Amino acid sequence: MKKILVIGAGRSTSSLIQYLLFNAETENWFITIADQSKDLAVEAANNNSLAKAIAFDVNNEEERNRLIDEHDLIVSMLPAHMHISVAQDCIKYKKHMVTASYVSKEMKALSQQAKDAGIIIMNEIGVDPGIDHLSAMRVIDQIRNEGGELEAFETFTGGLVAPESDNNPWNYKFTWNPRNVVLAGQGVCKFIQNHRYKYIPYHKLFRRTEIIEIDGYGKFEGYANRDSLQYREIYNLEDIPTMYRGTLRRPGFCKAWHYFVKLGVTDDSYIMEDSENMTNRQFINSFLPYNPDDSVELKFKHYFNIRQDDIEMYEKFEWLGIFEDTKIGLKEATPAQILQHILEQKWKLDPKDKDMIAMWHRFRFKQNGEDKEIHSSMVVKGDDQKYTAMAKTVGLPVAIATKMILNGTISTPGVHVPITKEIYNPILDELENYGINFTEKDVNPTFY
Amino acid sequence: MKKILVIGAGRSTSSLIQYLLFNAETENWFITIADQSKDLAVEAANNNSLAKAIAFDVNNEEERNRLIDEHDLIVSMLPAHMHISVAQDCIKYKKHMVTASYVSKEMKALSQQAKDAGIIIMNEIGVDPGIDHLSAMRVIDQIRNEGGELEAFETFTGGLVAPESDNNPWNYKFTWNPRNVVLAGQGVCKFIQNHRYKYIPYHKLFRRTEIIEIDGYGKFEGYANRDSLQYREIYNLEDIPTMYRGTLRRPGFCKAWHYFVKLGVTDDSYIMEDSENMTNRQFINSFLPYNPDDSVELKFKHYFNIRQDDIEMYEKFEWLGIFEDTKIGLKEATPAQILQHILEQKWKLDPKDKDMIAMWHRFRFKQNGEDKEIHSSMVVKGDDQKYTAMAKTVGLPVAIATKMILNGTISTPGVHVPITKEIYNPILDELENYGINFTEKDVNPTFY
Repeated sequence: MKKILVIGAGRSTSSLIQYLLFNAETENWFITIADQSKDLAVEAANNNSLAKAIAFDVNNEEERNRLIDEHDLIVSMLPAHMHISVAQDCIKYKKHMVTASYVSKEMKALSQQAKDAGIIIMNEIGVDPGIDHLSAMRVIDQIRNEGGELEAFETFTGGLVAPESDNNPWNYKFTWNPRNVVLAGQGVCKFIQNHRYKYIPYHKLFRRTEIIEIDGYGKFEGYANRDSLQYREIYNLEDIPTMYRGTLRRPGFCKAWHYFVKLGVTDDSYIMEDSENMTNRQFINSFLPYNPDDSVELKFKHYFNIRQDDIEMYEKFEWLGIFEDTKIGLKEATPAQILQHILEQKWKLDPKDKDMIAMWHRFRFKQNGEDKEIHSSMVVKGDDQKYTAMAKTVGLPVAIATKMILNGTISTPGVHVPITKEIYNPILDELENYGINFTEKDVNPTFY
Repeated sequence: MKKILVIGAGRSTSSLIQYLLFNAETENWFITIADQSKDLAVEAANNNSLAKAIAFDVNNEEERNRLIDEHDLIVSMLPAHMHISVAQDCIKYKKHMVTASYVSKEMKALSQQAKDAGIIIMNEIGVDPGIDHLSAMRVIDQIRNEGGELEAFETFTGGLVAPESDNNPWNYKFTWNPRNVVLAGQGVCKFIQNHRYKYIPYHKLFRRTEIIEIDGYGKFEGYANRDSLQYREIYNLEDIPTMYRGTLRRPGFCKAWHYFVKLGVTDDSYIMEDSENMTNRQFINSFLPYNPDDSVELKFKHYFNIRQDDIEMYEKFEWLGIFEDTKIGLKEATPAQILQHILEQKWKLDPKDKDMIAMWHRFRFKQNGEDKEIHSSMVVKGDDQKYTAMAKTVGLPVAIATKMILNGTISTPGVHVPITKEIYNPILDELENYGINFTEKDVNPTFY
């Protein structure tokens, strides 16, 4: 019997744990579900006789050591910065590890130690990063195998609301960590286009978007992710002329969000004076020039040159209640925290709402002197508010990778991301059983 | 005989050291000039029999202790972050200290220890901060003494080029630390206007300027400094409805600089790919959208909506050579470092150029139910490239404060900034002998 330890039983783990419990008997597994909240762990274990739930504090070193030593494979669903002490213990006790998070520098540095210990530390095996790697590498390898030379690779992913639950002027609700959405893109975004390095500063990011279309789901707009350049090395595409990674929203979102950026309300670097007693209206007014003769609404429109008849744009802001005299009540808060607080009242999922994950890749390549292009896309909707699209697309690849490590299908020790066909083929194939599949089509090549 | 140690003999210290040497005999002083560069110190000491020059590394603790112990007063002209270890030694050996820098949190925390040691640590006694405090507090106290209630205080200072040397399209040359000019305003700027807190994000800062005029010198434009709020406490103006501190440029500078901010070239937070082999033109192109059919010039104009006939704006950029294929040659450089490198070739002072410091205060107040307003301004030009306006206005207040501490005119121990009439009156009076004087006038009150 193989023993699996799942650390973290939060909302992203429902499909992961469901898969592990469902396959426990066949695969001869015993699963320990560990969470800071015992209740959460108990609920997740669901009285399954092949599972137990425990309360667990990852910062308790002794407890952590003991637990890791008792298991064969550790699935860490902790926040990204907390994986590293788990990984160190996994090396110490020679146990495998799986995470859905980006490989940090610290994690990468453990590669030789992991090899020496004969263990696998598999990272970036959720949705983004995760399914994006799997699905992109499958097409990239196929193009290479058929003698094609890749000239442009663009990839976009978005966590959105399903069309049937899409009923607000932003066409957006929070389906994942709201703080990450509010802070998205701060710093600079780097990519390469036709051999030219390109840099987009934050205050231009949401105006330099691309429109893409997914059959059956309509149009989306994408803004650039922070660092597209590092993927050239990871995908073994060092000389690719164009490489761009981005995030999807519904059209119109970015232009409006850009006003928040310009206003300065996404800034998380300083505390506002007397934030506790401020109202939404005063919050917005703090960023507009002083003018005692104009209303906040008028100053807002004027500041951004929103025409009086541009109702579609203006109603986005009005609907959020940002001009209302509602007290905020947050002590010593940053602008970003206050904005998040305002958005959370409006962009929350209703109990029957479903989320949606959309992913889209563009591959342009030359084959036998001919220009070709493939588009590949995936759309997954949530079943309900427990088995969300996010939980399915993050958790199922983690679960399948766990199975493949335990049954020896994945066997090369080291710190990995899933980019080889031995990994992507079986995982993508099995994901299709869960409605997670890609549609590929050949299109006329586009040149920008 | 009193012994003075001057640490730092860089370009800001010429007038300071000249004053000290000139008065050494009358005041019975001996002056030690210490600098990392012995040559610089020797040149500054100018063979004066009441001075000696030494090479000195402030990080050498033993040497620093010994030197401070040997003197009665230490003038620290080091970069701001290096004062603190000097201050700690001054407390240890019970020696006075004078600096032209802002009081850091660490410096402020030494206040009780300075009092206990019976020493004076006088800070912010250069030009900005320094002369701005002296001149503003004199008017503020005068308004208070005459029963007035201050409603708005705005103050602007700028280090500029004198009109006779002003011969480029930016009406600007570097007269001080270029790096500070390139990075100016990053973060957020806070002030208060008619009781309303206002925040300007960096990417809007250079579009929310004010135009002011100084008799005989024409128009200037001012942008907000980072934190105007803290001065309410320092000036004992906790309840003032409007408080704004800013920096002066000539009109047109800010609108053009704003394009650099929007482009993203003032960013100092990341290293550009292959910066060493980049040309000016490629540098600018990195921040513009890809379009193989348009020239960099056209993309630049288009990106910023610069009209084809707006020659005044466009020639600023063309004159800087940013579209030229000149190799930059800086290894692993940030955008801000590259921009600074480009600007330094163009914004350098010619050997005969003179610099200029301009300062302007606006005080609006109510007196006997009547609204009143006073404008106060100072303009100082450099004599040459050694005795610059910057060196005079920074160094002379430091030198006069040094004299006043040594002769007992300033005698209250502690960590201070110069805001009391016992300090500002004699210093402002003596500064007039050096052509540093304020013109005050009553004007019709303005309300924004």
